[in-house]
Parts: sequence; C-alpha cells; structure tokens
Amino acid sequence: MSSVPAVAEYAAFAASMADAVRPLSLGWFRRRLAVDDKADESPVTIADREVETALRAQIAARYPSHGIWGEEFGKRGVDAEFVWSVDPIDGTRSFITGHPLWGTLLALLHHGKPVVGLIDIPATGERWIGVNDATSGVCEARFGGALCATSPVTALADATVYATSPDIFDAAEYAQFERLTKAVSRRRFGGDCYAYGLLASGHIELVMEAGLQTYDYLAVAPVVEAAGGVITDWEGQPLTLTSQGRVLAAANAALHAAALACIRAD
Amino acid sequence: MSSVPAVAEYAAFAASMADAVRPLSLGWFRRRLAVDDKADESPVTIADREVETALRAQIAARYPSHGIWGEEFGKRGVDAEFVWSVDPIDGTRSFITGHPLWGTLLALLHHGKPVVGLIDIPATGERWIGVNDATSGVCEARFGGALCATSPVTALADATVYATSPDIFDAAEYAQFERLTKAVSRRRFGGDCYAYGLLASGHIELVMEAGLQTYDYLAVAPVVEAAGGVITDWEGQPLTLTSQGRVLAAANAALHAAALACIRAD
Repeated sequence: MSSVPAVAEYAAFAASMADAVRPLSLGWFRRRLAVDDKADESPVTIADREVETALRAQIAARYPSHGIWGEEFGKRGVDAEFVWSVDPIDGTRSFITGHPLWGTLLALLHHGKPVVGLIDIPATGERWIGVNDATSGVCEARFGGALCATSPVTALADATVYATSPDIFDAAEYAQFERLTKAVSRRRFGGDCYAYGLLASGHIELVMEAGLQTYDYLAVAPVVEAAGGVITDWEGQPLTLTSQGRVLAAANAALHAAALACIRAD
Repeated sequence: MSSVPAVAEYAAFAASMADAVRPLSLGWFRRRLAVDDKADESPVTIADREVETALRAQIAARYPSHGIWGEEFGKRGVDAEFVWSVDPIDGTRSFITGHPLWGTLLALLHHGKPVVGLIDIPATGERWIGVNDATSGVCEARFGGALCATSPVTALADATVYATSPDIFDAAEYAQFERLTKAVSRRRFGGDCYAYGLLASGHIELVMEAGLQTYDYLAVAPVVEAAGGVITDWEGQPLTLTSQGRVLAAANAALHAAALACIRAD
C-alpha cells in the first residue's frame, strides 16, 4: 500500500471543500450592501475573500505540505509536489449582476500538471469534477454523480463555439476568434467557466478564450480532458502555471486540430 | 361585481399554464435525439411545438373568446379584446447548447396592450410575473413569491447593460449599442429573456436589443414596467404588436431618458 493518498481521495476532498464554501458565496449573491462610508467593498470582493480564506484553511489543515495559489491571497509553497489552485468566484461580472452561472474553481496540480479539476456552480447546485492522473491511470469526468463525455462531432461546420464575451479579446485575438466562428455552425457569448462544463457534458464542441487567469484554466483542464476533450493554449501547447491565458478547448483531438489550424491560418 | 375576470385571475392562470408545461420543455432539454432518417427535427423544434400546443389548448379551454399569437402555430383571433402571446422556448441557442437560462414567455394583451407578462425559467425553477393593468390599477412584479423592484441607479456611468449577443445587431444598430456601452459602467452578453428578469429584480439597469420577436418583448414588458422600469422601442415609443423588435429597457424613467438620448445622438 502506498502512503501517498490516491487521487480519488484528493477529488473527494475537493468536492467536500466546494460543499463547505457554497453557503459563503451564496450568502453574498444578489445582496446589496448598505451604502455608507465604510461599505466601500463590493459583495464579490468580500465573497472572494471569505471563500478563499475558508478553502486555504481547509487545505492547510488537511494537507499541510501542499502549496496553494489563490486569486485573492497569492502563492504559498508553489514549488511543492502538490499545489492547489483556487478561484473563489469565477465570473465576477455574472456574480455582481445577479446572473447565476458563476463558479468556484479548484485544481490540484501534481508536479505542475493539473490532475484534479472542479467546477462548482453554487446558484444552480451543479458541479463538474474531472480526474486525469497518469500516475494512477484514473481518467474520468463527472457531472453531478454521473460520468460525462464530450461530443462526437469532429467537423468544424457542425460545431458550436462559446466565449465569455468579445471583450476578452484584443483586436488581433478577436480576428483569430472570428476566423473560427466563421467556420463553425454557431457561436454564443456569456459562458465563463460554465462553458467548459457544457463542453465536458457534450452540449457544445469548442470554447475559445483569451485573458484567462491561471486559476481559471487549470481547474477546467482536467474536466475537459477526462471527458474526452483536448485543451491547450492557442499554439497547441499544454496549459501550465505559466501559460498566457489563451485557451482553446475542443470535444476531441480531431476537432481541436481543425480549430487550431483554422485560428493559425493567415 | 364585474363579470369580467380580474387581472389577478389571468395572472394566476398564466402561472398555472407555466407550471403545466415545464415538464414538457425540460423533457427535451439536454437530450440528444437518435440519429436516423426520421429524426430530422431538433429537440428545440419538438419542444417548441409540444409546449405551444399545450398552452394553446389550455387557453382555448379556459377562455375560448381570447385570441392567441404563438411562435410556432401563428395567430388566431388576434382582434379579440384579450389576446395571449406565447413563446414556448425563448433562447433557442441556449436550449440547444445545454445552457439553462432559456425561458417560456407568456403575455396577455388587453386591447393590444400587454397587461400580464410571465418569464419562466424551467431549468432553474425561477419565474418573474408582472401585472400592469391601468383598468384595475394593479401594478406589481414578483420574482418567485416576492415583490421585486428595479435599481435606483439613474446615472449611465453607474449602470450595467445586457444584450443577448453582438450578433443580434446589424452594423448601424451595433454602432448605437456601442455608444451606449461606452457611456455605462459595464456590459455583458448572454442574456436572452433572463436579462429582463435581472433588470426587474434590480441587479442590472439596462437591456438593449434588436431583432426581438413580438412574443418576446410583449411578455417581458409588464414585468419590467411593474417593477418600476421603462421599456420602449429605440425611438421611445411603446411596444405594440407591430413594433420592429428593437427594445430599450431601463430601471427607471431618468435612466431610460439618458440611454435614449445617448443612442440617438449623432
């Protein structure tokens, strides 16, 4: 028996953390703060801080040797074998406008590679969790309790692409995005992290985004990969702690190759 | 006692109809059809038809003198004193991509003016219902069971604007939309009918759209108005059966006037 916990234990721990912090984020959702001189912080700021504080405390108590990289309170021990990345509230713009599809994102990295990813949507009670661990050979994605799998569509012409907003792209990036959207069946804006869950569940085929934070793409990667998808940067390189925030996710390798060729064509 | 039913009775009837058809639309949501020669229809097409058929049957049974205008099966008796407008699945693009914020929209028109509006979101179990009836003096909007009210923000610089997608505008319309978005605090895409509910509940301040169908804007108008908002076309004219599908909704009259001036400025 190995003394190192199995990846399934880490995944279950991630789920238990997400359960524990749901009431914190939901407590600030759709809530207006009293306007006085001291209330100069937005609900999302407070919710971010409360959720990340709770998550960091749970990780430190359970796995004190693990590193943590969070949106609000930064990095601690990120050269450790295992590092957790934490985005307490992904989809700030949704959160502060009452839109329910924001999420809490968690990833566990092993030697810099995300092996567990969790997308939790507190307002709808939905959750995707993916494990993609070469060491143990475990590779599965679940939506709620059930296994989920990506779409079998391999032709760009039959694919749907999501992006959070045209506003996430600079002009050159948007030109590349437009090239892809002209080749596909349809595009839709307004995804945030939820779009990667829809891809993992087989409802859409592509997500193309720019300007993502490390703690965003690291959490969605194992979900997409374990469901059968491929997710890289816009050069086709694996996502790491130091990727530049340009993400291309596809339902399968053939579609990913076609999308990559499309956006790189001059 | 009047022999004409009170508007509250119509509103309760609309809610009961929405309850009755939720299982129909949800039954087709996130469902892939078997691919064979006969299955050439999309889930949304089938869901649209089933839901509208059920709604029309309920209206005809309860109020046989009322007219009906539906997306799928057209107009019947629309010169009647009372006419129902029906959009069985608003947000087709969401529905067919597994995104939960599509809705069933109902409106009751009295002499051509929408007096009851209902926005039902089956996948999240949320519902807005508005009654704005000058005859009886009833004017109230509810989210779930609770009264809801629009935002007190009156300055464009503090406002958030939603639109379903940049793709709903033609080039000239998009230039007008961009003028507004440059004057406000933030914009977000991906709303469909849900955006009007967020406005009625005070979470956002503006919705600006083009290309809406009659059965879309007629249902959201009483919700927005009864919550304290103002909703017109882009010329500031009231929405009627023959409006051109360009809608500007604002949290209050001051903000609506400012937005209207902004989009009309050359």
